[in-house]
Amino acid sequence: MDVLQTVAETLAAVKAKRPLIHHITNYVTVNDCANMTLAIGASPVMASDVGEVEDMVALASALVLNIGTLDSRSVTAMLTAGKKATELGKPVVFDPVGAGATPYRTRTAYQILEEVGVSVLRGNLSEIKTIYGLAADTRGVDSVADDADAEEVATALAGRLGCIVAVTGKTDVVTDGNRVCRIDNGHPLLAGVTGTGCMATSLVGSCCGVAEPFVGAVAGIMVMGVAGELAQEALRPGDGIGTFRVRLFDAVSNMTPAMVVQAGKLR
Amino acid sequence: MDVLQTVAETLAAVKAKRPLIHHITNYVTVNDCANMTLAIGASPVMASDVGEVEDMVALASALVLNIGTLDSRSVTAMLTAGKKATELGKPVVFDPVGAGATPYRTRTAYQILEEVGVSVLRGNLSEIKTIYGLAADTRGVDSVADDADAEEVATALAGRLGCIVAVTGKTDVVTDGNRVCRIDNGHPLLAGVTGTGCMATSLVGSCCGVAEPFVGAVAGIMVMGVAGELAQEALRPGDGIGTFRVRLFDAVSNMTPAMVVQAGKLR
Amino acid sequence: MDVLQTVAETLAAVKAKRPLIHHITNYVTVNDCANMTLAIGASPVMASDVGEVEDMVALASALVLNIGTLDSRSVTAMLTAGKKATELGKPVVFDPVGAGATPYRTRTAYQILEEVGVSVLRGNLSEIKTIYGLAADTRGVDSVADDADAEEVATALAGRLGCIVAVTGKTDVVTDGNRVCRIDNGHPLLAGVTGTGCMATSLVGSCCGVAEPFVGAVAGIMVMGVAGELAQEALRPGDGIGTFRVRLFDAVSNMTPAMVVQAGKLR
Repeated sequence: MDVLQTVAETLAAVKAKRPLIHHITNYVTVNDCANMTLAIGASPVMASDVGEVEDMVALASALVLNIGTLDSRSVTAMLTAGKKATELGKPVVFDPVGAGATPYRTRTAYQILEEVGVSVLRGNLSEIKTIYGLAADTRGVDSVADDADAEEVATALAGRLGCIVAVTGKTDVVTDGNRVCRIDNGHPLLAGVTGTGCMATSLVGSCCGVAEPFVGAVAGIMVMGVAGELAQEALRPGDGIGTFRVRLFDAVSNMTPAMVVQAGKLR
Repeated sequence: MDVLQTVAETLAAVKAKRPLIHHITNYVTVNDCANMTLAIGASPVMASDVGEVEDMVALASALVLNIGTLDSRSVTAMLTAGKKATELGKPVVFDPVGAGATPYRTRTAYQILEEVGVSVLRGNLSEIKTIYGLAADTRGVDSVADDADAEEVATALAGRLGCIVAVTGKTDVVTDGNRVCRIDNGHPLLAGVTGTGCMATSLVGSCCGVAEPFVGAVAGIMVMGVAGELAQEALRPGDGIGTFRVRLFDAVSNMTPAMVVQAGKLR
Repeated sequence: MDVLQTVAETLAAVKAKRPLIHHITNYVTVNDCANMTLAIGASPVMASDVGEVEDMVALASALVLNIGTLDSRSVTAMLTAGKKATELGKPVVFDPVGAGATPYRTRTAYQILEEVGVSVLRGNLSEIKTIYGLAADTRGVDSVADDADAEEVATALAGRLGCIVAVTGKTDVVTDGNRVCRIDNGHPLLAGVTGTGCMATSLVGSCCGVAEPFVGAVAGIMVMGVAGELAQEALRPGDGIGTFRVRLFDAVSNMTPAMVVQAGKLR
């Protein structure tokens, strides 16, 4: 109840302050990330040339890093921007897309976590287990792992890294290593649209632009989950995944703080 | 009235001639730019490798340059393509996204304006003021400037650069330094979708493929403004920004020259 | 009838096995390709850094190569991934977007066909004629060629290359040089959305992840054609190309094997 109230205040603050969220992200879902950032009330900027990322991060309220389509140039840009954000005390939200699928992704995820002061690490269970050092059945960029041990792994990893770890799945888990929030919102159709994980990370980034990372992570992930439920409820006969995707953006743009308090399933 | 008639003729010509519009643009909104170009009746092509941009621009009726996610490779491609277009006498429409936000963007915008024969410069007031040399409150890629002095700055800059300057805002201003057109179409929801500025630039590029740049700029910007109004009118209870975005494409694809004459608010 | 039944079985197998489809594709339509791959029931992964493409292709059931926005880095990645797929005996589906428009594209298409064991080549008639060595009126990335000789050219090219050739147009042609299937599904509105060719290629890739290439090509192309028909039928007054595009994804996600058997127009 208390956390839910803080989540509501965070959403109100996003809309009031319109924080600038600097993204260095993949070219698959970047448009969706920008539109989700706008939908929640923040302002997105995508800039990935090493010649400007430090200047851009200095203007921003938070930095989102996402390795969905990493290459040597974007990794350099991420490290440069991430270090600058750390130096300036700005929150960094990191999405280790596909960690575990290839050695390059796993290695890069470690490097970012080592060299950048990450505030929130958000991934699916395969990715989080990989980073923790457990064998994970990562298959491309989609998670196939069981939710069972998400809480245990996330808590241990958060303690080790000293940052917030958010694992999304059937039940989402957000933890700083001590406190644990479990979010039971969401809908299976979210897995049928590419980039809903990336979009959740952008929403977390938007909330971290105005709130402390633990609350920002809970708020962003809950908004995505509630949006999934609302989008599904809005479907009519004949609608499919294309309409569901449109309705996701509708839901986030229409979501009031009061709606989140009402729909949020937090344990 | 006279200009409105010319705008209508331009739209009819786009649909009849289906000009090929070569884009070198950002990876955030590139899909929307391609779909908008198709929606108005033109044919988009995106090609950004320096090994082919001169060949591609030779096939095209107009070139659109957009620095939304510039890097050293795309800037080289833009300069190469832009010089070739200038040499071939083809119109170049330039969108200096985020000029003023970082020195790299501002510097690149200057360089393109110096080395390429730009026909139409389209930006928001922050960007246009930056290029004019005034201090502007550029915040990421979104404009926060007041519309008050748009006309004055645009006219002076058009005179200095010797090209059309189009400033989009609450009232859009298009000027060649002498003539001034003011367009009062549009809707605040347009600012809630990423890339509506980029899309307007693509529509301007499409129109410049068949008309002289002043008319092309007025036509492209007016189509976007009218589409914003129609998209908003089409919204039903429960719809949000996702549906609005879909309706924007519907509106442009369904827009007849007669509809523009009827809905256009030109001063 | 027999082939239609095999197509239906292929679709059922995609949904049951959820094959991982590795894409190295263009930045214009990559999001649509990912969402189409999900919509048919497969799992997309986009990875294009040369440091990881071999690892990723080893995890995948098929590889899709698309040169829509090629550059030197992506071409190197395509060749590296393509050779690895060939070595591992995995199907490679190649979309030579814009071959014929610039020498760079034509040359690259030849190089990929020479160095990679392509299983299915899918293009429009301009592209296929270019690769066959005939003069073609390629205009940007859209085909303007007449459908008349598609069958003759496709059959001859398939024989020469020793792979499946699929030419999409008013009637789609799929051939291995001996067998020929003609598909009469589709709708002219498909040409009004960017990337429907790329999406068809992704659907072919998805089907080739579970079936032999000839059947995979027929299945993927037929699903796109039937989806175009269903999307058009779902339009209501006032809808335009934006809604049509959303309905395409709805149609693929809702399409059952039985629906394809019923709607498929195969000769």
